[in-house]
Amino acid sequence: MRYAVLGTGEVGRTLGGRLVELGHEVRLGSRTPDNPAAAQWAAAAGAGAQAGTFAQAAAFGEVVVNAVGGRVALAALEAAGAENLDGKVLVDVSNPLAIEEGELRLSPVGSDSVGEQIQRAFPQARVVKTLNTVNCRVMVDPALVPGEHQVFVCGEEAGAKEQVVALLGEFGWPARRVLDLGGIREARAVEMWLPLWIGLMRNFGHAEFNLELRRAR
Amino acid sequence: MRYAVLGTGEVGRTLGGRLVELGHEVRLGSRTPDNPAAAQWAAAAGAGAQAGTFAQAAAFGEVVVNAVGGRVALAALEAAGAENLDGKVLVDVSNPLAIEEGELRLSPVGSDSVGEQIQRAFPQARVVKTLNTVNCRVMVDPALVPGEHQVFVCGEEAGAKEQVVALLGEFGWPARRVLDLGGIREARAVEMWLPLWIGLMRNFGHAEFNLELRRAR
Repeated sequence: MRYAVLGTGEVGRTLGGRLVELGHEVRLGSRTPDNPAAAQWAAAAGAGAQAGTFAQAAAFGEVVVNAVGGRVALAALEAAGAENLDGKVLVDVSNPLAIEEGELRLSPVGSDSVGEQIQRAFPQARVVKTLNTVNCRVMVDPALVPGEHQVFVCGEEAGAKEQVVALLGEFGWPARRVLDLGGIREARAVEMWLPLWIGLMRNFGHAEFNLELRRAR
Repeated sequence: MRYAVLGTGEVGRTLGGRLVELGHEVRLGSRTPDNPAAAQWAAAAGAGAQAGTFAQAAAFGEVVVNAVGGRVALAALEAAGAENLDGKVLVDVSNPLAIEEGELRLSPVGSDSVGEQIQRAFPQARVVKTLNTVNCRVMVDPALVPGEHQVFVCGEEAGAKEQVVALLGEFGWPARRVLDLGGIREARAVEMWLPLWIGLMRNFGHAEFNLELRRAR
């Protein structure tokens, strides 16, 4: 499969690298055509890895992964171009975190989410929110963390979610550990997990953890 | 120990009932002195159980538990009276949920929390946020749910948190399963867990679940 991964930060490079290892072709997209991090990534990731602009990457991908920060997701996707997103599965792994008044905060929060913003702005894209609840090393290697811990999907279209569940399976998340929360509105819920995730990271001293839901029945 | 439990809903009655079973004296507080739910609870809970107004309950308790909804917590605590809260451990288990625009939403959210509101309004109270992340049946009987699932505490004062950790131990939460997130500001993080909790409740079809943090190390 051909993947566009938008974002050359740790999340984008990690997801893109793992997709290449899995045998996919990946074009890592950035704002500029000559991004050094993207070029270095493409050289190191080997055959199947290319770098380009957001638009070049999105045009290339059969599936588009949004791995830029949640606060700049709409700008990156505008640059990618609606015509390069229409009809495609758009996997959003971002969180809208930023420093405000000296504190790390989410925005939007509560009555909106990045997942919903993206779906509204690109109504022809098949947006699925997933993986934003774990660190990127855990995203692509869930066995780093012991236990039957889980990830979530939400989105408007069952077919797109099925395709994402299959991708998660390639990363090592069996379908039984992928919980479908419903429509894209539930992106609010998974994005609002982040403040607790950050508190736990501080408590544990590292980011390699996840939650396992335990149930009476 | 003498406990005030403010709130005659399911959360207050469940917490109050378990405290009586554990041998404590409990006064369940409500807005009015003749609340039928409170009177019925006191009659059924047996020796050690009384009903009263918020102020009567808070005056009685050595520890005060806020078990009214998060949106009305400040009003209930104002009625309880600052003079009846000063210097006492105030356990806040509430969540600020309400229907807005036809949707269940948190308010405050993101840049404030009920835990912080209470601590600001009653600076002499020793506020500890805890247990708001689970259903009230799980609060007082964690063995309902299998596994090493956890609860959280946060608050400004270590001594108050220690006292709450001991109370959680009486409910069946061993200290190793109580994670201290830090100061009362972290109430934001645990309150923002609620939207995901609600999505999971809908997915599972019941409220008897909890999260177990799994860690690489």
